[in-house]
This record gives sequence, structure tokens and C-alpha cells, in this order.
Amino acid sequence: MAKYMDVHHSMKGITEEKLREAHNADLAIEKDEQVHFEMAWADPESGRVYCLSEAPSAEAVQRIHERAGHKADEIHPVPLTVQ
Amino acid sequence: MAKYMDVHHSMKGITEEKLREAHNADLAIEKDEQVHFEMAWADPESGRVYCLSEAPSAEAVQRIHERAGHKADEIHPVPLTVQ
Repeated sequence: MAKYMDVHHSMKGITEEKLREAHNADLAIEKDEQVHFEMAWADPESGRVYCLSEAPSAEAVQRIHERAGHKADEIHPVPLTVQ
Repeated sequence: MAKYMDVHHSMKGITEEKLREAHNADLAIEKDEQVHFEMAWADPESGRVYCLSEAPSAEAVQRIHERAGHKADEIHPVPLTVQ
């Protein structure tokens, strides 16, 4: 398992409610691929959404996002974290 | 105060130690601009680094990153968060 940051580019105008709905759609099916979406951050003005997940592969992350109706534009493994 | 996600594109080969050093360089001076860098995630292969901060403006985030020696390539406010 590894950490991934994925980025969506085209979610202009996203609201708190829509972000919550999208995140819940991922959570509802994520176990099918042993993925867990931990957090997401959105910028309604630029349309960027960043999702942090723990997953077996980038492909597994994408399969969940695709089935939930919001394919990611970029997915990067982020093996290093600082806090 | 608002949340920001900034992205660095050119940190290929970054190590855990270098990420920690870069983050500490930000932490050492962040108070000058009322910024707080909360977390950072890095992908040594693509060179992408994502930093999550709380700050008064994107310009304040950039001033700290510039003084610490690592200007951000993108800075986006992320007013929406889900967990």
C-alpha cells in the first residue's frame, strides 16, 4: 500500500456539498479496490481538486474515481510525507 | 486566514531528509508572514511536491517559499476540505 495524490482540473464551481457527495461516492466503493480516500481539498475558482489516498496502485485509485463518475487528470504516488 | 495547496514541479530525486530540511526551512520563517505549513507530500520520481498551508494570502505563502529557497510553481486556495 502506498499514498497517492490525485488531481482533478475541471471542477470549477464545486461546492462544499458537491465535494462531500463526490467523496462519499468514492468511499462507498473504495473497498472493492482496497483504496482509502483520506482527504480532499477543492478550489472552486480554478476547478482543482486534490485527493489524498492510500491504495495498492494508481490504477486502483483511478478505477474507483472513474466508477464514481470523476476520473482524475493526474495521479502521483507520494511516498514521502512531512508534518 | 485560508488554506492553500501549493505545488512544486521540479524536485526530482527528493529524499525524505531533503523534504524534511525544506519543510523545516519554511517553518523557521513562516511566522514572519503569519503562514503555517501543515503538511507536505513528495513524489521523487515526478518531482512533484504538494504543500498544504494556512495563510493570509497566496503571496504570503510564496514569499516564505522563496526565502526558503524553493519557489512554488502553483499556489491554489483550497477553501473546501473533506475528510
